[in-house]
Amino acid sequence: MESVRLALIQMKCEEQPERNLAKALRMVEEAASRKAQIVCLQELFRSQYFCQREDAKSFELAEPIPGPTTEALSEVAKKRSLVIVAPIFERRAAGVYHNSAVVFDADGSLAGHYRKMHIPEDPCYFEKFYFTPGDLGFPVHRTRYGSIGVLICWDQWFPEAARLVAMAGAQLILYPTAIGWYHDEKERAREKQRNAWQTIQRAHAIANGLYVGAVNRVGVEGELEFWGSSFVADPMGEVIAQASASEDEILIADCVFDKIERVRRNWPFLRDRRIDAYGDLTLRWRG
Amino acid sequence: MESVRLALIQMKCEEQPERNLAKALRMVEEAASRKAQIVCLQELFRSQYFCQREDAKSFELAEPIPGPTTEALSEVAKKRSLVIVAPIFERRAAGVYHNSAVVFDADGSLAGHYRKMHIPEDPCYFEKFYFTPGDLGFPVHRTRYGSIGVLICWDQWFPEAARLVAMAGAQLILYPTAIGWYHDEKERAREKQRNAWQTIQRAHAIANGLYVGAVNRVGVEGELEFWGSSFVADPMGEVIAQASASEDEILIADCVFDKIERVRRNWPFLRDRRIDAYGDLTLRWRG
Repeated sequence: MESVRLALIQMKCEEQPERNLAKALRMVEEAASRKAQIVCLQELFRSQYFCQREDAKSFELAEPIPGPTTEALSEVAKKRSLVIVAPIFERRAAGVYHNSAVVFDADGSLAGHYRKMHIPEDPCYFEKFYFTPGDLGFPVHRTRYGSIGVLICWDQWFPEAARLVAMAGAQLILYPTAIGWYHDEKERAREKQRNAWQTIQRAHAIANGLYVGAVNRVGVEGELEFWGSSFVADPMGEVIAQASASEDEILIADCVFDKIERVRRNWPFLRDRRIDAYGDLTLRWRG
Repeated sequence: MESVRLALIQMKCEEQPERNLAKALRMVEEAASRKAQIVCLQELFRSQYFCQREDAKSFELAEPIPGPTTEALSEVAKKRSLVIVAPIFERRAAGVYHNSAVVFDADGSLAGHYRKMHIPEDPCYFEKFYFTPGDLGFPVHRTRYGSIGVLICWDQWFPEAARLVAMAGAQLILYPTAIGWYHDEKERAREKQRNAWQTIQRAHAIANGLYVGAVNRVGVEGELEFWGSSFVADPMGEVIAQASASEDEILIADCVFDKIERVRRNWPFLRDRRIDAYGDLTLRWRG
């Protein structure tokens, strides 16, 4: 059975966006040298995680799509015949900014565009200040190496999002992420949070019978210690590759997309959904 | 903070229904002696798992609601001030049978009735032959000790079901279950299946910020070795109680329902659901 080689790039970020972009491009090239076919960068990889503060100056980090960053990525996608999933802080219009991701096909063409649908707002994650909620829905992006659903960070806690991209035909869901611990959090609380984070994403693989890859940044920035731990789960939710909590890393996993149909034939959940009884899922609350 | 004591009863079943009922009643009494307040029995606890074969004679096992089994359970609920969740093979009418569960409040009154919504059909799990799909939707049952969502076995693989009972106000989801391995399955495949089974249910706890309890039978019947392993997960998906894979057991867990709001305040997923974008969840497939 044929496999597709996936590379998840987790990295520390510096203050200068140009340096982060250059580092990401170097790591993408290295992934290509290791025969990766699909490469995914972490959420907002071009900058530090500026959402720790509400500061209107940070909107200066936003870029148009297409723009200089997407052009650089498109070029390397074409040169190395890679599919690249790249998060972008998107400037769509004056006052309309999105936490987005683009997908380049292996010929360098734009295969897809996603705008983060679920926007968090927590201490040190002031994303509702920066990001207009996405309006592109939950699409799947068809590429030379497979059909990819891209969801971003906070989206990972919503089974609805995973289900919708699965129903659109995704073989792989990628979750570029920026999640960390506060400095004063205790070891036990840290483990509990990271376990929950991994568990729910493994469950999306299980519920939908597909591959899931989560790419999280590493390093300390301001009040946060990003916990890395990027991983890939197979269609039964088993972790087949796992990165460290603190180091720059290119995490490689070979995904056998033929497994998807085999798993779904044995656990035919998609056959049995009670679509006649799910209407209330579009309510805020029942009662 | 006040806690509610939950008891999950996993047990081997014999051929005679009366003996299984008597055993279940004894174990319920023992759970009461151990100060349980909510007690949950396993799926179809009154019989062996007859769905391994399609045999019209097995419909003889079905019972009306109310009927002798519900009366016996109501009585012990009242006598011991217990909330009891009891799966029943329900005879609703000639030719209409359901895989159901009833909930008795601590005064013995009927607090709720659920009919399994997702019906499996796999080798040795020929449930589509026996059970008409449920038509009571995904209700929550309000009892003296808390609000309970009851879902049954195959339902556990569907995030939609967990979400809907959570949105109806459930503090605890209970999953009476009958799941096992075929004799010829290898150790590695067994572990992988059981891990997926536990992982997805822990994820329902995480996604919805509530307690989850799964109650699975034990013992060998025909072609199946039921894997027991009943467990309780807290609102962050951590397993707080875990039973063995092969022995009769009353698994006790103290659930602190106040934790639910605390967890949901820190991880406010329910605030951020994109109900404007979930309409396609009522489709069979997108495309």
